[in-house]
Amino acid sequence: MHDISVIIPAAGSGSRMGGDVPKPFIKIAGLPVLSHTLRCFDYVDRIALVILAVSEGCKTLAQQAIESSGVKVPVKIVNGGAERLDSIRNALQHIAPGTSLIAVHDAVRPFVGRELLLRLIESAEKYGSSIPGLPVTDTIKQIDNDGLVISTPLRSSLRSVQTPQIFRTDILKSAYKHAALQGIRATDDASLVEYLGHEVKVIEGTPENIKLTYPEDLQKAAFILNNKI
Amino acid sequence: MHDISVIIPAAGSGSRMGGDVPKPFIKIAGLPVLSHTLRCFDYVDRIALVILAVSEGCKTLAQQAIESSGVKVPVKIVNGGAERLDSIRNALQHIAPGTSLIAVHDAVRPFVGRELLLRLIESAEKYGSSIPGLPVTDTIKQIDNDGLVISTPLRSSLRSVQTPQIFRTDILKSAYKHAALQGIRATDDASLVEYLGHEVKVIEGTPENIKLTYPEDLQKAAFILNNKI
Repeated sequence: MHDISVIIPAAGSGSRMGGDVPKPFIKIAGLPVLSHTLRCFDYVDRIALVILAVSEGCKTLAQQAIESSGVKVPVKIVNGGAERLDSIRNALQHIAPGTSLIAVHDAVRPFVGRELLLRLIESAEKYGSSIPGLPVTDTIKQIDNDGLVISTPLRSSLRSVQTPQIFRTDILKSAYKHAALQGIRATDDASLVEYLGHEVKVIEGTPENIKLTYPEDLQKAAFILNNKI
Repeated sequence: MHDISVIIPAAGSGSRMGGDVPKPFIKIAGLPVLSHTLRCFDYVDRIALVILAVSEGCKTLAQQAIESSGVKVPVKIVNGGAERLDSIRNALQHIAPGTSLIAVHDAVRPFVGRELLLRLIESAEKYGSSIPGLPVTDTIKQIDNDGLVISTPLRSSLRSVQTPQIFRTDILKSAYKHAALQGIRATDDASLVEYLGHEVKVIEGTPENIKLTYPEDLQKAAFILNNKI
């Protein structure tokens, strides 16, 4: 049974990392970040297809990243959009036939881990939508436009969410349709599902499932890679 | 004018880091984390005293960390309590005479930076309370006891707050008095001030002002140190 499609939006510019190379194509341990990310999806039999949404100028780099990853799962390159949600909206047109679950994953989270993936799949089948999250270590404040604190939400009730976020196909498609009609923008896909009123289950993520955002994160990534092997 | 006291609660066990040595005493670049942290407060003339609250069993380690830091600012060791707030409550009894501002700082945030410190002091004088915060890069969800999402606060309105948190002496003392009377526990000091209804200003923190929580953070710390020198 190959009934899961994975969508990876990789069209962002990644300006916070500095440098000329977009973040998914920066190399760690000799391979582009994206190659490491693709490998995370090569160990679950149910995955039918990985869809990479990239901007026109990065298609050659993306092709090279696929080749150097050596993955056996089919990977398809499609057009990325101006924003993350646009990329995913386009990728949704390309999911494999018979897809029952869709995983949406950040291109720059190269250490998902098979065990987390399997737990997310199981949970998405039960709840319709499942996402990984970690307890928050810093205190989080909500501020107003002047930088004054409005509230300090109870830290134990907060989760810093990661990807992959996994959804039943019908739910994610409805959420994107609804978001387009209402003009909703959001920082993750689960938010669009929440707008529909569907349940979203947060399960425990893993500390090594980091998103590479700042230059320091590349050191952390190298450390995680060294400790995996 | 020496009118600022700094309180550093260092009695926590730091179980997330693993290993036998409490986090403030783990070495990076040959020095205990706490020594690096103390050095952050050696470059602002107005600082009268640094008060370290440590548990009985760590007093020798604390004394060694002070010596190896080589700081010129006076450092006083006082008794830490069972929880962070208890340590700070005790340290408040030991602030220097004539203290107009109190900075509370995590023992395991060794890279504050003089520039940030000066901005915080200026802002605390203006607003009464000032804390550093960074924009949040991951999406944050609030969940219920079953792990289901309750809400996704607008990410652009969130700040992940750091220390030092700087307060006018009268405000912080009132906040601790009020918290004791009401039995309020919180994950940071600004929260106690918020309970009083006082303004708390969040100013831009720095990415290198990290809290050393997980083993991977030590690598990040080494990277930051290498790039400072």
